[in-house]
Amino acid sequence: MTGVFVTLEGPEGAGKSTNLAYIADALQRAGCEPLLTREPGGTPIAERVRGILLEHHEEPMDPDAELLLVFAARAQHLSRVIMPALAQGQVVISDRFTDATYAYQGGGRGIDSARIAALETWTQGALRPDLTLVLDVPVEVGMARARARSALDRFESEQRAFFDGVRSTYLQRAADNPGRYRVIDASGELAQVQRKLEPVIEQILERWRA
Amino acid sequence: MTGVFVTLEGPEGAGKSTNLAYIADALQRAGCEPLLTREPGGTPIAERVRGILLEHHEEPMDPDAELLLVFAARAQHLSRVIMPALAQGQVVISDRFTDATYAYQGGGRGIDSARIAALETWTQGALRPDLTLVLDVPVEVGMARARARSALDRFESEQRAFFDGVRSTYLQRAADNPGRYRVIDASGELAQVQRKLEPVIEQILERWRA
Repeated sequence: MTGVFVTLEGPEGAGKSTNLAYIADALQRAGCEPLLTREPGGTPIAERVRGILLEHHEEPMDPDAELLLVFAARAQHLSRVIMPALAQGQVVISDRFTDATYAYQGGGRGIDSARIAALETWTQGALRPDLTLVLDVPVEVGMARARARSALDRFESEQRAFFDGVRSTYLQRAADNPGRYRVIDASGELAQVQRKLEPVIEQILERWRA
Repeated sequence: MTGVFVTLEGPEGAGKSTNLAYIADALQRAGCEPLLTREPGGTPIAERVRGILLEHHEEPMDPDAELLLVFAARAQHLSRVIMPALAQGQVVISDRFTDATYAYQGGGRGIDSARIAALETWTQGALRPDLTLVLDVPVEVGMARARARSALDRFESEQRAFFDGVRSTYLQRAADNPGRYRVIDASGELAQVQRKLEPVIEQILERWRA
């Protein structure tokens, strides 16, 4: 028995939390209890690493150090939360996973994707999500929504070019592998976005029942 | 101009701090101002990672996560401290470096050395220490000295078999590459150990002047 590994991707302000709750609700009504988690984080030790990643520091953080911290948190999250849940046949939905690493540390910071791929394989072996939802919004919309919400973390404080790189990386990865990705236009009304999620929810339930 | 990169290795209780100070003193008397640093740590962000590594946690730490945290701290340390100092021609002496990773995460935790080597090259490229001093003491001597000192951290709390693996890895690595390593018997009197350090200090000064 192996579960279904779903990841939800997109910038701050794309509506990940709201839509994650909506998907979880729909799954629960169908009798499926998904495990909801997030990255970076998802375990006490991984959340400590998240703190270092998101906080502002006086010292600039080296991009390689940042990338290794992301994968350190991920290794902990995988071994303690994701892998055990999948082994028990659960649906796991993670708010961000390795696509975010390609988007933020790759497209945003400029780390070569081959260097990211090396750590991905080192850490995850062959494990990849079964389904990845990319909530897509224009960069200025995401940035404006994030700014309206709360103090900006170390990533949210980045400049326009950084988020252009994040968005284009998500879209490129989705285009390269349409079997795994679903890109959802998340710039419109919530009800509209949620209508687009219906076939995705069906697909998760089908795989879970299989 | 490139400096000289010296690393000091050995278990807790081998006398690393005392002998590091002794070497630094001798170098200073010869007109050389070494940069003294340590791992894991050596920068504010890397010291935060050190905290996570050394503290006790209720949650078990995944060995891969531990290894990635070690290299994350190292990448930060390299980019902010070690590489700039070497580029300026300084002698850098680090209390522990990647040999400790092979010893603790490899020999101690049992991670395959090929997996460690992959991250070493990913993080360091071709950079390796010019000279590595291994302060060697029998396992029971090191453990007893560490216990007598203060509360034991997450590594110091490990069992005998762990430290057997640490010691044998250090000795094996030194035996495999006698050009880079000097093994110093650190079980005797301090004055005796320090006499054995004299040729090492001479060697550092020669390379520094070259």
